[in-house]
Amino acid sequence: MQNQGLLKDLIQSLCCLPGVGPKSAQRMAFHLLQRNRAGGRQLSDILSQAMNNIGYCRDCRTLTEVEVCDVCANQLRDNDVLCIVESAADVWVIDQATSFKGKYFVLHGRLSPLDGIGPDQLGIDKLEQRLSAGAIKEIILATNSTIEGQATAHFIGEIAAKFNIRATRIAHGIPMGGELEFIDSGTLSHAFNGRREF
Amino acid sequence: MQNQGLLKDLIQSLCCLPGVGPKSAQRMAFHLLQRNRAGGRQLSDILSQAMNNIGYCRDCRTLTEVEVCDVCANQLRDNDVLCIVESAADVWVIDQATSFKGKYFVLHGRLSPLDGIGPDQLGIDKLEQRLSAGAIKEIILATNSTIEGQATAHFIGEIAAKFNIRATRIAHGIPMGGELEFIDSGTLSHAFNGRREF
Repeated sequence: MQNQGLLKDLIQSLCCLPGVGPKSAQRMAFHLLQRNRAGGRQLSDILSQAMNNIGYCRDCRTLTEVEVCDVCANQLRDNDVLCIVESAADVWVIDQATSFKGKYFVLHGRLSPLDGIGPDQLGIDKLEQRLSAGAIKEIILATNSTIEGQATAHFIGEIAAKFNIRATRIAHGIPMGGELEFIDSGTLSHAFNGRREF
Repeated sequence: MQNQGLLKDLIQSLCCLPGVGPKSAQRMAFHLLQRNRAGGRQLSDILSQAMNNIGYCRDCRTLTEVEVCDVCANQLRDNDVLCIVESAADVWVIDQATSFKGKYFVLHGRLSPLDGIGPDQLGIDKLEQRLSAGAIKEIILATNSTIEGQATAHFIGEIAAKFNIRATRIAHGIPMGGELEFIDSGTLSHAFNGRREF
């Protein structure tokens, strides 16, 4: 098969999806072509619409195709609690998994001076504006528990202190259902230091 | 997130890919939106082109965007050996893995009377035409080693006999590097019965 142009291009393009290598891409391409052309066409349409129309929410910077996302526009949600996350995917998972009913703020990254990511890239100025407006009583720091995530939480915690706003950090410790035997030592020592009254 | 329309649609559409569930689809959608919009746009373009333009080769019925596929159009390949496979994906893997230089014929399925798949659906009439033309000296039956695949091979083998054409079947046995201990009993007994001079 010296030159199966379009089929080869399709397989190559599918490799841009995370977790998809040449073998899975091949399987996907053949599956769509042989069994689900309608699905493939629909995927193509929606993909193009999404890539071109989804932008960032004016208020919380999450991904949305409208100016103000549904969460920010929702009058039933609390305006006095703000959950700060690293990515739009985090908004999605927190909203699916928890009963949190406040608003969000998406940093789109974490402080990482070596990669040239400072407060400007994370929209800290916008965050300060929101904090200074006075409606917010608590911020929940839900950045990841990596070194950069912790540093970012610390940095934003200090800004909150400046405005006399309560800052909380989501709990770190043993995952639910996790067995102590198999937990890494960092998490375990963190869980011991962070123990609470029973 | 009551109504994140387009984002939700995108995640749902990505689930049409084989092996992709809601979690992977979510990861793919966020990855494309946050890190690789160009890749997403390109995938959308090529997907739509492929779904609309890729059809079946006039001669061998494989997937191609031109009337006669590269393999059939290639004058350097043998015209006297025909390899018969169940799907276009098989053409692709055989061409990548082996040094086979003959032509192919794609059945797009296997005989399966219960599912209403008979000789008509598999293009057997077209195959008979080719066999009757007289150029073909050998057919290689490379259908899968399932019950239906075997039955299909048998059926086509009888057609070949009618035209006095030699029919061979790809070898079944222990996979290369396979350890006897872990091979299923069907394969093992097949390998014993099909043993050859060493």
